[in-house]
Amino acid sequence: MAFALSFGSRVRKSPYFEASVAAGVTQFSVYNHMYMPTSYGDAEAEYRRLIEGVSQWDVAAERQVEIAGPDAAALAQYLSPRDVSRCRVGQGKYVPLCDHTGRLINDPVLLKLSEDRFWFSIADSDVLLWARAIAAERGYDVEVREPDASPLAIQGPKAEAVACDLFGAWPRDLKYFWFRETEIDGIPLVLARSGWSKQGGFELYLTDGARGTDLWNLVCEAGRPYGIGPGAPNYIERIESGLLSYGADTDNDTNPFEVGLGKYLELEIDADFVGKSALRKIARKGPKRRQVGLFLEGARIDAPAHPWPIVLEGRNVGKAAAAAYSPRLERNIAIAMIDSQFAESRTELTVETIDGPRCAEVTALPFC
Amino acid sequence: MAFALSFGSRVRKSPYFEASVAAGVTQFSVYNHMYMPTSYGDAEAEYRRLIEGVSQWDVAAERQVEIAGPDAAALAQYLSPRDVSRCRVGQGKYVPLCDHTGRLINDPVLLKLSEDRFWFSIADSDVLLWARAIAAERGYDVEVREPDASPLAIQGPKAEAVACDLFGAWPRDLKYFWFRETEIDGIPLVLARSGWSKQGGFELYLTDGARGTDLWNLVCEAGRPYGIGPGAPNYIERIESGLLSYGADTDNDTNPFEVGLGKYLELEIDADFVGKSALRKIARKGPKRRQVGLFLEGARIDAPAHPWPIVLEGRNVGKAAAAAYSPRLERNIAIAMIDSQFAESRTELTVETIDGPRCAEVTALPFC
Repeated sequence: MAFALSFGSRVRKSPYFEASVAAGVTQFSVYNHMYMPTSYGDAEAEYRRLIEGVSQWDVAAERQVEIAGPDAAALAQYLSPRDVSRCRVGQGKYVPLCDHTGRLINDPVLLKLSEDRFWFSIADSDVLLWARAIAAERGYDVEVREPDASPLAIQGPKAEAVACDLFGAWPRDLKYFWFRETEIDGIPLVLARSGWSKQGGFELYLTDGARGTDLWNLVCEAGRPYGIGPGAPNYIERIESGLLSYGADTDNDTNPFEVGLGKYLELEIDADFVGKSALRKIARKGPKRRQVGLFLEGARIDAPAHPWPIVLEGRNVGKAAAAAYSPRLERNIAIAMIDSQFAESRTELTVETIDGPRCAEVTALPFC
Repeated sequence: MAFALSFGSRVRKSPYFEASVAAGVTQFSVYNHMYMPTSYGDAEAEYRRLIEGVSQWDVAAERQVEIAGPDAAALAQYLSPRDVSRCRVGQGKYVPLCDHTGRLINDPVLLKLSEDRFWFSIADSDVLLWARAIAAERGYDVEVREPDASPLAIQGPKAEAVACDLFGAWPRDLKYFWFRETEIDGIPLVLARSGWSKQGGFELYLTDGARGTDLWNLVCEAGRPYGIGPGAPNYIERIESGLLSYGADTDNDTNPFEVGLGKYLELEIDADFVGKSALRKIARKGPKRRQVGLFLEGARIDAPAHPWPIVLEGRNVGKAAAAAYSPRLERNIAIAMIDSQFAESRTELTVETIDGPRCAEVTALPFC
């Protein structure tokens, strides 16, 4: 499908918007009420660059929800089904956020900037409203706001070399999800070892939105010897790597156990948090659906524009949210949510694609 | 700017999606995590149809947040800075939703379906998360969910004739914002006299998402004698009519008084509601900024893709979120937010458009 995207004031622009346009962006989506580049017109080159080299992404749409003030640690803990007290300043943690009934409402990384200041670096839902409501209803002494903080990701096996050329040797020693506040050419930013791929890399959280083009160009320049080029969160790589896409893989009633995030929860800690008893109950009973991988037979497959139904013996047993031909596996692969009783590897199912039914086989995630 | 929009499972499709494509949609935006048609390729025809005839719009992206259960009325009141007890079954009310500090977070219409079931028919923000958080923290005995309810709007001076041909004479007697549950050809829906234009019309809240194409085609057929055609919330008409576009005209810190919604608030009622004391305080002090209309000099103006700064004697005093050439006024008009001391009609300002500065004059809203 090829349709134009409307541009107006309701959807915001990233600080890297002009740089992305200059770099040849051809396609956008909208994420957290912001335009987010999704393609620069050469899907194969963008995939190869991520897998073999280094790619630079405008992911400013990954907004931050900042919690600051005397009760910041208490609120960050109450919103998080993990032990936040064990998170150190300069450390990040992947935190599946759940509502009071255990439904997944976002899957941010929590960054502890100081003892009384935290960022949730969020996927596509208005966590700001949710966090403000809870803070106010419970009377926490905090400010909850969206700071001027816009990630630019560099991803791929050569990302570390680019980061070290830009910042010195210390990024090499940064552990996964850890970060440091720094600056370059007077541009303030937070450098974190993170990013929505499994190819390694960093996110540069620019904290002066007026300097987007400057930062983009600095990264571009530093990456030139390594063949850096523009890219975006990669559809194929994320399926291969089994990375959760909140909103695509989930619906309004998905719990973290269904999408393989149970291992991140710490349900036995003393601290109270939103959804604690509901999550414990789901953990005991086990989820009714599970996210799995699928191998699909037949010719190279195109991505579904909306989830495809999955059937077994004439019965609807789930849906496939994302599918692609994997260049690394040389097979068609998909991410699907199916009823738990059919989630065993090697179960054979039928996916009702837009071009007709395809035989499929269940497998564990990730693929790569 | 002309860029393609990505299609995938993260952004949902409307029940009218296929019908819109068949009707020749050319452009979409994303609203409430859903694709929303914004153009069928002939802006002038779409405007004329709305002003002089009748237009049919896929506005399924105007999602509903349903509150149902024993405490539904109590929660609906607590979320609303208006007297919900005076709302009757079958009646709707425009309710600016505010957070605990009085910031505007959405501007839905509240529909009272029964004594224990309400819908907030929302603009573009995740009110579902916010309402669920508050309901749970306060222990209300309610279910808060997104029902299968997708509005199709018919708007324009001939919309009433189309509605009566479809449903009989009773829609003629429906008062503004009132509604009735009904069905047509076995398609269940809620028919309301409402819609995001000032040209009059109805919204058909389809309550069986599988019947979208059927309902679209029925409306199309009934409207044929009146020259109905496809359209979308109209950029020019909404500026002329001074209708608020939440997210475009507002930012994360806008209060309802700034955007002319103070008249809808009922701050003196006995019932408690979110933001009550904060809103009273703002009401006493008066807002620091105000939404106004602007007349702009010079050649026909194009819409801003992002807000334009407004300056007075070298000082930044506000921004213009939306601007267009009005065919009815034969003038360039804009909607702007400016510092209150410059909000007097006839104040002269400069708007820094993408093509350079333009002289502008403040005027009251609406234009038409």
